[in-house]
Amino acid sequence: MKVAVMRRAGIAVEHMPDPVPSAGEILVKTLACGICGTDVRTLHHAHALIEEGGGDHAVLDRGIVMGHEFCAEIVDYGPDTQRQWPAETRICALPVMPGPALNLIGYSPEYPGGFGELMRVSESMTVPVPDVLSVEQAVFTEPLAVAVHAVSKVPVEPDSVVLVVGCGTVGLAVIAVLRRLKNVRSIVAADPSPRRRALAEVMGASRVVDPAAGSPYQAWAEIATALGTLQRRPFIEAPFGEPVRPATIFDCAGAPGVLPSLIHGAPKGGHLVVVGACMQPQDIRPLWALGRELRLSFSCGYRRDEFVNALTHIANGEVDLTPLVTGTVNIDHVPEAFDLLSETDPHVKIVVKSEAAP
Amino acid sequence: MKVAVMRRAGIAVEHMPDPVPSAGEILVKTLACGICGTDVRTLHHAHALIEEGGGDHAVLDRGIVMGHEFCAEIVDYGPDTQRQWPAETRICALPVMPGPALNLIGYSPEYPGGFGELMRVSESMTVPVPDVLSVEQAVFTEPLAVAVHAVSKVPVEPDSVVLVVGCGTVGLAVIAVLRRLKNVRSIVAADPSPRRRALAEVMGASRVVDPAAGSPYQAWAEIATALGTLQRRPFIEAPFGEPVRPATIFDCAGAPGVLPSLIHGAPKGGHLVVVGACMQPQDIRPLWALGRELRLSFSCGYRRDEFVNALTHIANGEVDLTPLVTGTVNIDHVPEAFDLLSETDPHVKIVVKSEAAP
Repeated sequence: MKVAVMRRAGIAVEHMPDPVPSAGEILVKTLACGICGTDVRTLHHAHALIEEGGGDHAVLDRGIVMGHEFCAEIVDYGPDTQRQWPAETRICALPVMPGPALNLIGYSPEYPGGFGELMRVSESMTVPVPDVLSVEQAVFTEPLAVAVHAVSKVPVEPDSVVLVVGCGTVGLAVIAVLRRLKNVRSIVAADPSPRRRALAEVMGASRVVDPAAGSPYQAWAEIATALGTLQRRPFIEAPFGEPVRPATIFDCAGAPGVLPSLIHGAPKGGHLVVVGACMQPQDIRPLWALGRELRLSFSCGYRRDEFVNALTHIANGEVDLTPLVTGTVNIDHVPEAFDLLSETDPHVKIVVKSEAAP
Repeated sequence: MKVAVMRRAGIAVEHMPDPVPSAGEILVKTLACGICGTDVRTLHHAHALIEEGGGDHAVLDRGIVMGHEFCAEIVDYGPDTQRQWPAETRICALPVMPGPALNLIGYSPEYPGGFGELMRVSESMTVPVPDVLSVEQAVFTEPLAVAVHAVSKVPVEPDSVVLVVGCGTVGLAVIAVLRRLKNVRSIVAADPSPRRRALAEVMGASRVVDPAAGSPYQAWAEIATALGTLQRRPFIEAPFGEPVRPATIFDCAGAPGVLPSLIHGAPKGGHLVVVGACMQPQDIRPLWALGRELRLSFSCGYRRDEFVNALTHIANGEVDLTPLVTGTVNIDHVPEAFDLLSETDPHVKIVVKSEAAP
C-alpha cells in the first residue's frame, strides 16, 4: 500500500506491505483522514519525545504512519470477529487497540494510521457512518469527541463566560460544543490568526481577540463584569476572595509559553482545562497557581460513548465542523501539507483523501 | 513592643511602636504563635518574591513581622467595633484584613503578626477560644483550617487510598483530617525525616515511606492493588484507560522538584492537591500530565466556616496536633528558631510563646 510515513528525516511517501488483520481486527481502506495538530508537533518533536520516553530511535526506521481522524471502508475481517457490518460499510473507529499498554493507531509502527491506504482497526472500536454524511463530515468525529470530553471536565452553564485560547481544530470544536451543545452564550476566543478568529465566530464565539493586540483575560473580564459573574463571596464568609462563579479557560493552543501565561493571568479560582499537547518542558510558578487556587484539568482522549455521541451530533446536524477544512490533498502531498500546517498563518484542517486530485 | 522582624538582612529582634487599632479592629496581645513552613520559605525567598511581584524592597526596610498561626488575648477595641467579648478573652483570628486587596496579617508591614507582642486583628475574623484549650492547642486552628480546606478540594471516602507527600505541619494536619474527620483508612505518608514519619503514624498514616529509600507511588500502588481500587473502566467503555477510582495525592512539601516528580509519577487520572507553597519556578512537562489526564487543585487559605470548624474539632478532641510541637521559644529566640527550621532533619512546629523561658 502507499503511505506517507514518518522516518528519522521527516515524512516520506513510500510503499509498505499491506497490513494483515489479527484476531478481533478489521482491515479497512482509508477514505479520508484529517491531519491533527498533534501529528504536526509529533513530527517536529519525535526525536526528543523518543529520547525522553526512553524509547529507541529505531522505531523511526520501522516508520510510523500517522493519522487517527479517519473515515474508512470495511475491506476484510480478521479471525474472531463478529462481522456485524458487510464489506464496503463506511466506518469511523476510536484509534485505540486493546492490550495491556495504550496502543494508538497512527502513533505505533504496529498500527499504521490514515495517511496510508489501508489500516487495521479494532472491531470493538468501530462505529458505522450514516449514509447521509460525507467523508469530510465523518472525519470530524474524532476531534469533536476530543472537545466533548474536554468540556465534560468542567461545569458550564448557558450564562457561563468561557475563554478558549488557541483556535485550531480542537479549540474550534470546543467552541462549537460550548455553543451548540451546551448553549453557552459568552465565549471569548483568542488566536493570533485572523483566519482562525473568523472561524471561531462561525463556530459560535461571541468575541474574538488577537492576543498580540489585547489581553484575552481583559476581554473575558469585561464580559464577566457586565454580566455580573465576577463577584466574590462576601468577605465575612470567604476572606481569601473565593469567587461565586470561578472562571473557565480552555488551553487548546498546545504551544510553548501559553500554559505559563494562562496560569499567570488566570483570575482567582479559575479552572483551566488543558487540551492542547505542548511537547516542550514549561516553566511554571506554583506560587501563582497556589495564591489564586487555580485548578488544572488535563484532557486527553475520550470514552467510547463520547465518540459515538460525537458522530451522532454530526449526523443530526447539531455540529458542523466542515468549515474548518482549508485544504484537501492525496497521500502524495502529505509532506507538503505538514509543511503548510507548520507555517505562521496556517491552515486549520487539511484532509487527506484517497480520491483527491494530485 | 518587642518584635522579631524580617528585614533585608534576615530576622532581627527589635522594638517597634505599638500598633493602634483602626475601625473594626481589635488590639490583641500575642499568647502563642506557630512558625509556619511558609514563613521559613518567605524568609529565604523574600528578595526574589518582591522582585517577581514588582514590589519594592523598601518594604523590608519598614520590616515585616511574620506569624499568622496565633492565639491572643483581647487588649482593646478600635472604633466601630461590636465589642462582643470582654478584654482578656482569648481568641484566634483569620489573619486576613478587609479591603479591596488581600491583606494578610504577618505578610505586610501594616499588619504585624504573632512574632510581635501586639497585633491588630479584624473583629469580624475573630473567634473566641474555649477555656478548656491550651494556647498550644489553639495555635493549630490555622494550620488545621488549611488542611480542612485542602481535603475539601477532592472527594475522599473511607476506603480511598491517599498519598500525602511532605510531613511538615500541613502534611501532618492533612493526614489527621483524612484519618480523624474523613475516616480514611489507607494513608501513605512520604517524608525524608524519620521524626516526621513517626509523627505521620501518630496522626494516622497506615504506611510511611522514606522517598530516598523507596517510591511513595510504589507503596501507594501496592495498597491500592491489594484493596482492588486500581481497576480501569472496561476497555470497551473507556479505551484510553480511565480508572474507576482516580488516585488522590496531596503535595504538602512545598519543596523544589516535588511537584514535577509527582506529575511525572502520578497514575492515570490522578488528582493532585497542591498545598505546599513552592516558591521557585518549576519545570513541568505538560505532556506527562496530559497523557495521564491529571488534575491539579491548588489550595490556599480557607473559608471562615472552615476556620471556625477547625477550632471546634480541636475543642471536641477530634483532632490533636500538639504532638507536632517540637520546640517552644520566646520572641528573643525567633531568629534561631528559623535557623533550626531550615536544617535538614528539622523540627516540625516551633511555637513562639510570650511566657516561654529564654
